[in-house]
Amino acid sequence: MLTKPFTLLLLALGAHAAAADTDRHFINGERTAAQTPPPISDGVLVGNTLYISGHLSVDPKTGQVPVDPQAEAKLVMDRVKRTVESAGLTMDDVVSIQVFCTDLALFDTFNSVYRSYFPHGFPARAFLGAGALLRGAHFEVLGVAVRRPSKP
Amino acid sequence: MLTKPFTLLLLALGAHAAAADTDRHFINGERTAAQTPPPISDGVLVGNTLYISGHLSVDPKTGQVPVDPQAEAKLVMDRVKRTVESAGLTMDDVVSIQVFCTDLALFDTFNSVYRSYFPHGFPARAFLGAGALLRGAHFEVLGVAVRRPSKP
Amino acid sequence: MLTKPFTLLLLALGAHAAAADTDRHFINGERTAAQTPPPISDGVLVGNTLYISGHLSVDPKTGQVPVDPQAEAKLVMDRVKRTVESAGLTMDDVVSIQVFCTDLALFDTFNSVYRSYFPHGFPARAFLGAGALLRGAHFEVLGVAVRRPSKP
Repeated sequence: MLTKPFTLLLLALGAHAAAADTDRHFINGERTAAQTPPPISDGVLVGNTLYISGHLSVDPKTGQVPVDPQAEAKLVMDRVKRTVESAGLTMDDVVSIQVFCTDLALFDTFNSVYRSYFPHGFPARAFLGAGALLRGAHFEVLGVAVRRPSKP
Repeated sequence: MLTKPFTLLLLALGAHAAAADTDRHFINGERTAAQTPPPISDGVLVGNTLYISGHLSVDPKTGQVPVDPQAEAKLVMDRVKRTVESAGLTMDDVVSIQVFCTDLALFDTFNSVYRSYFPHGFPARAFLGAGALLRGAHFEVLGVAVRRPSKP
Repeated sequence: MLTKPFTLLLLALGAHAAAADTDRHFINGERTAAQTPPPISDGVLVGNTLYISGHLSVDPKTGQVPVDPQAEAKLVMDRVKRTVESAGLTMDDVVSIQVFCTDLALFDTFNSVYRSYFPHGFPARAFLGAGALLRGAHFEVLGVAVRRPSKP
Protein backbone atom coordinates (compact mmCIF):
# COMPACT_ATOMS: atom_id res chain seq x y z
CA MET A 1 0.00 0.00 0.00
CA LEU A 2 2.61 2.52 1.08
CA THR A 3 5.07 3.77 -1.48
CA LYS A 4 8.75 3.11 -0.84
CA PRO A 5 9.52 6.60 0.54
CA PHE A 6 6.65 6.23 3.01
CA THR A 7 8.00 2.90 4.14
CA LEU A 8 11.50 4.27 4.63
CA LEU A 9 10.09 7.15 6.62
CA LEU A 10 8.12 4.74 8.77
CA LEU A 11 11.22 2.67 9.50
CA ALA A 12 13.28 5.76 10.23
CA LEU A 13 10.71 7.10 12.68
CA GLY A 14 10.40 3.72 14.39
CA ALA A 15 14.14 3.36 14.83
CA HIS A 16 14.47 6.92 16.07
CA ALA A 17 11.68 6.52 18.60
CA ALA A 18 13.13 3.29 19.97
CA ALA A 19 16.58 4.83 20.39
CA ALA A 20 15.31 8.03 22.01
CA ASP A 21 13.07 6.15 24.42
CA THR A 22 15.40 3.45 25.68
CA ASP A 23 19.04 4.49 25.25
CA ARG A 24 20.65 4.99 28.64
CA HIS A 25 23.39 6.96 30.30
CA PHE A 26 24.92 6.27 33.67
CA ILE A 27 25.35 9.41 35.78
CA ASN A 28 28.26 9.34 38.22
CA GLY A 29 29.42 12.65 39.54
CA GLU A 30 30.34 12.54 43.17
CA ARG A 31 32.71 9.67 43.82
CA THR A 32 36.07 10.52 45.33
CA ALA A 33 39.23 8.53 44.70
CA ALA A 34 39.34 7.49 48.35
CA GLN A 35 36.01 5.67 48.31
CA THR A 36 35.50 2.08 47.36
CA PRO A 37 32.71 2.81 44.93
CA PRO A 38 29.49 1.01 45.89
CA PRO A 39 27.73 -0.82 43.04
CA ILE A 40 25.44 2.04 42.11
CA SER A 41 25.14 4.89 39.66
CA ASP A 42 24.01 8.26 41.04
CA GLY A 43 21.34 8.15 38.38
CA VAL A 44 20.42 6.44 35.13
CA LEU A 45 18.95 8.45 32.27
CA VAL A 46 16.91 6.38 29.84
CA GLY A 47 15.30 8.35 27.05
CA ASN A 48 13.84 11.41 28.79
CA THR A 49 13.47 9.71 32.18
CA LEU A 50 16.09 9.98 34.93
CA TYR A 51 16.01 7.44 37.75
CA ILE A 52 17.70 9.11 40.74
CA SER A 53 19.46 6.90 43.29
CA GLY A 54 18.86 7.18 46.99
CA HIS A 55 21.13 10.01 48.13
CA LEU A 56 22.13 10.10 51.80
CA SER A 57 22.46 13.27 53.85
CA VAL A 58 26.15 12.56 54.20
CA ASP A 59 28.94 14.81 52.95
CA PRO A 60 30.52 12.77 50.13
CA LYS A 61 33.95 14.27 50.86
CA THR A 62 34.09 13.73 54.63
CA GLY A 63 31.57 10.93 55.14
CA GLN A 64 30.07 13.03 57.96
CA VAL A 65 26.44 13.83 58.72
CA PRO A 66 25.91 17.54 59.57
CA VAL A 67 24.93 18.16 63.21
CA ASP A 68 22.12 20.55 62.26
CA PRO A 69 19.12 18.74 60.67
CA GLN A 70 18.34 21.76 58.50
CA ALA A 71 21.87 21.67 57.07
CA GLU A 72 21.43 17.94 56.62
CA ALA A 73 18.24 18.44 54.59
CA LYS A 74 20.00 21.04 52.45
CA LEU A 75 22.98 18.73 51.92
CA VAL A 76 20.87 15.85 50.65
CA MET A 77 18.75 18.03 48.38
CA ASP A 78 21.90 19.66 46.95
CA ARG A 79 23.26 16.19 46.20
CA VAL A 80 20.05 15.24 44.41
CA LYS A 81 20.19 18.51 42.49
CA ARG A 82 23.77 17.86 41.37
CA THR A 83 22.80 14.46 40.01
CA VAL A 84 19.79 15.90 38.21
CA GLU A 85 21.91 18.65 36.66
CA SER A 86 24.73 16.24 35.78
CA ALA A 87 22.18 14.43 33.63
CA GLY A 88 21.31 17.69 31.86
CA LEU A 89 17.96 18.13 33.59
CA THR A 90 16.74 20.65 36.18
CA MET A 91 14.83 20.31 39.43
CA ASP A 92 11.73 21.50 37.53
CA ASP A 93 11.89 18.16 35.70
CA VAL A 94 11.53 16.11 38.91
CA VAL A 95 8.13 14.38 38.96
CA SER A 96 8.41 12.00 41.92
CA ILE A 97 10.36 11.88 45.20
CA GLN A 98 10.62 9.44 48.08
CA VAL A 99 12.05 10.71 51.36
CA PHE A 100 13.12 8.11 53.92
CA CYS A 101 13.65 9.58 57.36
CA THR A 102 14.72 7.99 60.64
CA ASP A 103 12.93 10.60 62.80
CA LEU A 104 9.50 11.80 61.72
CA ALA A 105 9.81 14.77 64.12
CA LEU A 106 12.05 16.25 61.41
CA PHE A 107 9.11 16.48 58.94
CA ASP A 108 8.64 20.26 59.22
CA THR A 109 12.35 20.95 59.22
CA PHE A 110 12.81 18.89 56.07
CA ASN A 111 9.83 20.54 54.34
CA SER A 112 11.08 24.06 55.06
CA VAL A 113 14.26 23.26 53.14
CA TYR A 114 12.69 21.03 50.48
CA ARG A 115 10.09 23.62 49.48
CA SER A 116 12.69 26.02 48.06
CA TYR A 117 13.92 23.47 45.52
CA PHE A 118 10.57 23.40 43.71
CA PRO A 119 9.31 26.94 43.09
CA HIS A 120 7.18 25.93 40.07
CA GLY A 121 5.11 23.02 41.43
CA PHE A 122 5.75 20.10 43.74
CA PRO A 123 6.58 16.56 42.62
CA ALA A 124 4.55 13.61 43.82
CA ARG A 125 6.18 12.57 47.10
CA ALA A 126 6.14 10.02 49.88
CA PHE A 127 7.65 10.77 53.30
CA LEU A 128 8.41 7.49 55.03
CA GLY A 129 9.83 6.46 58.37
CA ALA A 130 12.85 4.23 57.80
CA GLY A 131 14.00 1.65 60.34
CA ALA A 132 17.55 2.89 59.84
CA LEU A 133 19.73 4.50 57.18
CA LEU A 134 23.35 3.93 56.27
CA ARG A 135 26.09 5.96 58.01
CA GLY A 136 23.73 7.43 60.59
CA ALA A 137 21.97 9.73 58.13
CA HIS A 138 18.54 11.08 59.02
CA PHE A 139 17.49 11.40 55.37
CA GLU A 140 17.71 9.42 52.15
CA VAL A 141 16.08 10.91 49.05
CA LEU A 142 15.43 9.22 45.71
CA GLY A 143 13.19 10.03 42.76
CA VAL A 144 12.34 10.25 39.09
CA ALA A 145 12.70 13.20 36.72
CA VAL A 146 11.40 13.55 33.16
CA ARG A 147 12.99 16.05 30.78
CA ARG A 148 10.48 18.57 29.50
CA PRO A 149 10.25 19.47 25.84
CA SER A 150 12.71 22.21 24.98
CA LYS A 151 11.13 25.59 24.26
CA PRO A 152 11.13 26.46 20.57
CA MET B 1 16.38 13.24 0.19
CA LEU B 2 12.96 13.74 1.70
CA THR B 3 10.55 16.00 -0.10
CA LYS B 4 9.31 19.05 1.77
CA PRO B 5 5.96 17.52 2.81
CA PHE B 6 7.80 14.52 4.26
CA THR B 7 10.07 16.80 6.24
CA LEU B 8 7.18 18.81 7.60
CA LEU B 9 5.44 15.60 8.62
CA LEU B 10 8.59 14.41 10.36
CA LEU B 11 8.87 17.66 12.30
CA ALA B 12 5.20 17.62 13.20
CA LEU B 13 5.39 14.06 14.50
CA GLY B 14 8.55 14.80 16.47
CA ALA B 15 7.08 17.87 18.15
CA HIS B 16 3.84 16.06 18.92
CA ALA B 17 5.65 13.10 20.46
CA ALA B 18 7.83 15.31 22.66
CA ALA B 19 4.83 17.22 23.97
CA ALA B 20 2.77 14.10 24.63
CA ASP B 21 5.61 12.34 26.44
CA THR B 22 6.88 15.02 28.75
CA ASP B 23 4.19 17.63 29.39
CA ARG B 24 3.06 17.47 33.01
CA HIS B 25 0.04 18.21 35.15
CA PHE B 26 -0.01 18.57 38.90
CA ILE B 27 -2.94 16.74 40.49
CA ASN B 28 -4.23 18.26 43.71
CA GLY B 29 -7.66 17.24 44.81
CA GLU B 30 -7.93 16.75 48.51
CA ARG B 31 -6.53 19.76 50.34
CA THR B 32 -8.88 21.58 52.66
CA ALA B 33 -8.67 25.29 53.41
CA ALA B 34 -7.73 24.56 57.03
CA GLN B 35 -4.56 22.64 56.21
CA THR B 36 -1.17 24.18 55.73
CA PRO B 37 -0.49 22.45 52.44
CA PRO B 38 2.63 20.29 52.59
CA PRO B 39 5.03 20.70 49.65
CA ILE B 40 3.60 17.87 47.58
CA SER B 41 1.20 17.22 44.74
CA ASP B 42 -1.19 14.28 45.15
CA GLY B 43 0.14 13.10 41.82
CA VAL B 44 2.01 14.29 38.75
CA LEU B 45 0.91 13.22 35.29
CA VAL B 46 3.66 13.36 32.69
CA GLY B 47 2.63 12.15 29.25
CA ASN B 48 0.70 8.95 29.92
CA THR B 49 2.42 8.21 33.24
CA LEU B 50 0.98 9.24 36.61
CA TYR B 51 3.29 9.31 39.61
CA ILE B 52 1.07 8.86 42.68
CA SER B 53 2.23 10.37 45.97
CA GLY B 54 2.34 8.41 49.19
CA HIS B 55 -1.21 8.59 50.54
CA LEU B 56 -1.69 8.04 54.28
CA SER B 57 -4.59 6.12 55.80
CA VAL B 58 -5.75 9.34 57.43
CA ASP B 59 -9.07 11.03 56.83
CA PRO B 60 -8.10 14.27 55.03
CA LYS B 61 -11.05 16.13 56.59
CA THR B 62 -10.57 15.12 60.24
CA GLY B 63 -6.90 14.15 60.34
CA GLN B 64 -7.97 10.96 62.14
CA VAL B 65 -6.92 7.36 61.54
CA PRO B 66 -9.90 4.95 61.58
CA VAL B 67 -9.92 2.56 64.56
CA ASP B 68 -10.67 -0.47 62.40
CA PRO B 69 -7.68 -1.52 60.21
CA GLN B 70 -9.99 -2.74 57.45
CA ALA B 71 -11.64 0.69 57.29
CA GLU B 72 -8.15 2.19 57.31
CA ALA B 73 -7.11 0.09 54.30
CA LYS B 74 -10.27 1.12 52.46
CA LEU B 75 -9.69 4.78 53.31
CA VAL B 76 -6.16 4.83 51.90
CA MET B 77 -7.11 2.92 48.75
CA ASP B 78 -10.07 5.27 48.18
CA ARG B 79 -7.69 8.22 48.47
CA VAL B 80 -5.36 6.67 45.90
CA LYS B 81 -8.33 6.00 43.64
CA ARG B 82 -9.51 9.62 43.86
CA THR B 83 -6.07 10.86 42.82
CA VAL B 84 -5.93 8.38 39.92
CA GLU B 85 -9.38 9.44 38.74
CA SER B 86 -8.64 13.14 39.22
CA ALA B 87 -5.87 12.65 36.67
CA GLY B 88 -8.34 11.12 34.22
CA LEU B 89 -7.11 7.55 34.68
CA THR B 90 -8.68 4.50 36.29
CA MET B 91 -7.41 1.91 38.77
CA ASP B 92 -7.00 -0.48 35.81
CA ASP B 93 -4.18 1.83 34.67
CA VAL B 94 -2.15 1.31 37.87
CA VAL B 95 1.00 -0.70 37.10
CA SER B 96 3.02 -0.46 40.32
CA ILE B 97 2.25 0.01 44.02
CA GLN B 98 4.32 0.29 47.18
CA VAL B 99 2.59 -0.30 50.51
CA PHE B 100 4.40 0.83 53.65
CA CYS B 101 2.92 -0.66 56.79
CA THR B 102 3.86 -0.24 60.45
CA ASP B 103 2.48 -3.65 61.47
CA LEU B 104 3.05 -6.62 59.16
CA ALA B 105 0.35 -8.56 61.02
CA LEU B 106 -2.08 -6.43 58.99
CA PHE B 107 -0.93 -8.03 55.71
CA ASP B 108 -4.00 -10.25 55.22
CA THR B 109 -6.41 -7.52 56.31
CA PHE B 110 -4.87 -5.09 53.85
CA ASN B 111 -4.92 -7.64 51.01
CA SER B 112 -8.59 -8.48 51.54
CA VAL B 113 -9.46 -4.83 50.90
CA TYR B 114 -6.80 -4.14 48.27
CA ARG B 115 -7.84 -7.06 46.08
CA SER B 116 -11.21 -5.54 45.22
CA TYR B 117 -9.62 -2.44 43.65
CA PHE B 118 -7.99 -4.49 40.89
CA PRO B 119 -10.51 -6.91 39.34
CA HIS B 120 -8.65 -7.11 36.00
CA GLY B 121 -5.07 -7.96 37.04
CA PHE B 122 -2.78 -6.95 39.86
CA PRO B 123 -0.09 -4.27 39.65
CA ALA B 124 3.49 -5.03 40.58
CA ARG B 125 3.69 -4.41 44.32
CA ALA B 126 5.99 -4.29 47.31
CA PHE B 127 4.68 -4.63 50.87
CA LEU B 128 7.22 -3.14 53.24
CA GLY B 129 7.50 -2.71 56.98
CA ALA B 130 8.00 0.96 57.79
CA GLY B 131 9.77 2.15 60.93
CA ALA B 132 6.98 4.67 61.42
CA LEU B 133 4.47 6.67 59.40
CA LEU B 134 3.21 10.21 59.81
CA ARG B 135 0.15 10.91 61.99
CA GLY B 136 0.04 7.39 63.42
CA ALA B 137 -1.18 5.81 60.18
CA HIS B 138 -0.71 2.06 59.69
CA PHE B 139 -0.55 2.38 55.89
CA GLU B 140 1.02 4.62 53.27
CA VAL B 141 0.43 3.73 49.63
CA LEU B 142 2.16 5.16 46.56
CA GLY B 143 2.47 4.02 42.96
CA VAL B 144 2.61 4.55 39.24
CA ALA B 145 -0.18 4.36 36.67
CA VAL B 146 0.07 4.43 32.88
CA ARG B 147 -2.93 5.44 30.80
CA ARG B 148 -3.95 2.69 28.38
CA PRO B 149 -4.68 3.41 24.74
CA SER B 150 -8.29 4.46 24.32
CA LYS B 151 -10.53 1.90 22.68
CA PRO B 152 -11.34 2.75 19.06
CA MET C 1 -3.15 20.25 3.68
CA LEU C 2 -1.91 16.69 3.99
CA THR C 3 -2.77 14.27 1.20
CA LYS C 4 -4.75 11.19 2.14
CA PRO C 5 -1.74 8.83 2.25
CA PHE C 6 0.02 11.22 4.63
CA THR C 7 -3.02 11.31 6.87
CA LEU C 8 -3.29 7.53 6.93
CA LEU C 9 0.40 7.28 7.81
CA LEU C 10 -0.06 9.80 10.60
CA LEU C 11 -2.96 7.81 12.05
CA ALA C 12 -1.06 4.55 11.71
CA LEU C 13 1.97 5.96 13.50
CA GLY C 14 -0.14 7.48 16.25
CA ALA C 15 -2.01 4.24 16.90
CA HIS C 16 1.20 2.25 16.82
CA ALA C 17 2.94 4.57 19.26
CA ALA C 18 0.03 4.55 21.70
CA ALA C 19 -0.17 0.77 21.67
CA ALA C 20 3.55 0.27 22.05
CA ASP C 21 3.80 2.73 24.93
CA THR C 22 0.89 1.68 27.09
CA ASP C 23 -0.11 -1.92 26.38
CA ARG C 24 0.63 -4.09 29.40
CA HIS C 25 1.44 -7.65 30.30
CA PHE C 26 1.24 -9.21 33.72
CA ILE C 27 4.28 -11.35 34.55
CA ASN C 28 3.62 -14.25 36.89
CA GLY C 29 6.17 -16.99 36.98
CA GLU C 30 6.83 -18.30 40.42
CA ARG C 31 3.57 -19.17 42.14
CA THR C 32 3.16 -22.73 43.32
CA ALA C 33 -0.18 -24.53 43.53
CA ALA C 34 0.10 -24.70 47.32
CA GLN C 35 0.20 -20.94 47.87
CA THR C 36 -2.81 -18.74 48.23
CA PRO C 37 -1.66 -16.23 45.63
CA PRO C 38 -1.28 -12.76 47.09
CA PRO C 39 -2.84 -9.94 45.05
CA ILE C 40 0.27 -9.08 43.11
CA SER C 41 1.95 -9.72 39.79
CA ASP C 42 5.69 -10.47 39.85
CA GLY C 43 6.02 -7.66 37.34
CA VAL C 44 4.01 -5.57 34.93
CA LEU C 45 5.42 -4.74 31.50
CA VAL C 46 3.93 -1.63 29.96
CA GLY C 47 5.41 -0.67 26.60
CA ASN C 48 9.16 -1.04 27.10
CA THR C 49 9.05 -0.50 30.87
CA LEU C 50 8.91 -3.35 33.38
CA TYR C 51 7.80 -2.57 36.92
CA ILE C 52 9.31 -5.28 39.13
CA SER C 53 7.49 -6.22 42.34
CA GLY C 54 9.22 -6.41 45.69
CA HIS C 55 10.79 -9.87 45.77
CA LEU C 56 11.57 -11.35 49.18
CA SER C 57 14.68 -13.40 49.95
CA VAL C 58 12.43 -16.39 50.59
CA ASP C 59 12.53 -19.65 48.68
CA PRO C 60 9.19 -19.67 46.82
CA LYS C 61 8.99 -23.48 47.03
CA THR C 62 9.72 -23.96 50.73
CA GLY C 63 8.82 -20.55 52.18
CA GLN C 64 12.16 -20.63 54.00
CA VAL C 65 14.81 -17.92 54.36
CA PRO C 66 18.36 -19.27 53.80
CA VAL C 67 20.51 -19.27 56.96
CA ASP C 68 23.50 -17.74 55.18
CA PRO C 69 22.95 -14.04 54.27
CA GLN C 70 25.08 -14.38 51.15
CA ALA C 71 22.86 -17.22 49.91
CA GLU C 72 19.88 -15.06 50.83
CA ALA C 73 21.16 -12.18 48.71
CA LYS C 74 21.73 -14.55 45.79
CA LEU C 75 18.25 -16.03 46.19
CA VAL C 76 16.50 -12.68 46.02
CA MET C 77 18.56 -11.46 43.06
CA ASP C 78 17.90 -14.72 41.21
CA ARG C 79 14.19 -14.23 41.79
CA VAL C 80 14.37 -10.71 40.39
CA LYS C 81 16.35 -12.01 37.42
CA ARG C 82 13.74 -14.69 36.68
CA THR C 83 10.99 -12.07 36.63
CA VAL C 84 13.02 -9.79 34.36
CA GLU C 85 13.74 -12.66 31.97
CA SER C 86 10.14 -13.90 32.08
CA ALA C 87 9.20 -10.51 30.67
CA GLY C 88 11.68 -10.95 27.82
CA LEU C 89 14.23 -8.48 29.22
CA THR C 90 17.70 -8.96 30.69
CA MET C 91 19.41 -7.64 33.83
CA ASP C 92 21.25 -5.15 31.58
CA ASP C 93 17.85 -3.51 31.06
CA VAL C 94 17.40 -2.76 34.79
CA VAL C 95 17.63 1.00 35.41
CA SER C 96 16.51 1.36 39.03
CA ILE C 97 16.54 -0.81 42.16
CA GLN C 98 15.36 -0.39 45.73
CA VAL C 99 16.77 -2.73 48.37
CA PHE C 100 14.98 -2.89 51.70
CA CYS C 101 17.04 -4.56 54.40
CA THR C 102 16.29 -5.30 58.05
CA ASP C 103 19.97 -5.24 59.08
CA LEU C 104 22.25 -2.60 57.58
CA ALA C 105 25.30 -4.59 58.76
CA LEU C 106 24.56 -6.82 55.73
CA PHE C 107 25.34 -3.95 53.31
CA ASP C 108 28.75 -5.28 52.20
CA THR C 109 27.53 -8.88 51.99
CA PHE C 110 24.63 -7.84 49.81
CA ASN C 111 26.82 -5.70 47.57
CA SER C 112 29.34 -8.50 46.98
CA VAL C 113 26.54 -10.64 45.54
CA TYR C 114 24.61 -7.82 43.83
CA ARG C 115 27.63 -6.56 41.92
CA SER C 116 27.90 -9.70 39.79
CA TYR C 117 24.40 -9.23 38.34
CA PHE C 118 25.36 -5.98 36.62
CA PRO C 119 28.66 -6.37 34.76
CA HIS C 120 27.86 -3.55 32.28
CA GLY C 121 26.92 -0.64 34.55
CA PHE C 122 24.99 -0.25 37.75
CA PRO C 123 21.34 0.80 38.00
CA ALA C 124 20.30 3.72 40.14
CA ARG C 125 19.72 2.25 43.61
CA ALA C 126 18.57 3.00 47.12
CA PHE C 127 19.56 0.79 50.07
CA LEU C 128 17.09 1.34 52.87
CA GLY C 129 16.65 0.05 56.38
CA ALA C 130 13.20 -1.52 56.72
CA GLY C 131 11.38 -1.75 60.04
CA ALA C 132 10.52 -5.34 59.19
CA LEU C 133 9.91 -7.56 56.17
CA LEU C 134 7.41 -10.35 55.58
CA ARG C 135 8.31 -13.95 56.52
CA GLY C 136 11.50 -12.95 58.36
CA ALA C 137 13.41 -12.06 55.21
CA HIS C 138 16.45 -9.79 55.48
CA PHE C 139 16.03 -8.44 51.96
CA GLU C 140 13.26 -7.23 49.67
CA VAL C 141 14.25 -6.00 46.21
CA LEU C 142 12.11 -4.12 43.68
CA GLY C 143 12.89 -2.08 40.60
CA VAL C 144 12.28 -0.85 37.10
CA ALA C 145 13.75 -2.12 33.83
CA VAL C 146 13.49 -0.57 30.37
CA ARG C 147 14.00 -2.71 27.28
CA ARG C 148 16.84 -1.43 25.13
CA PRO C 149 16.48 -1.02 21.39
CA SER C 150 17.31 -4.28 19.64
CA LYS C 151 20.60 -4.29 17.79
CA PRO C 152 20.18 -4.02 14.01
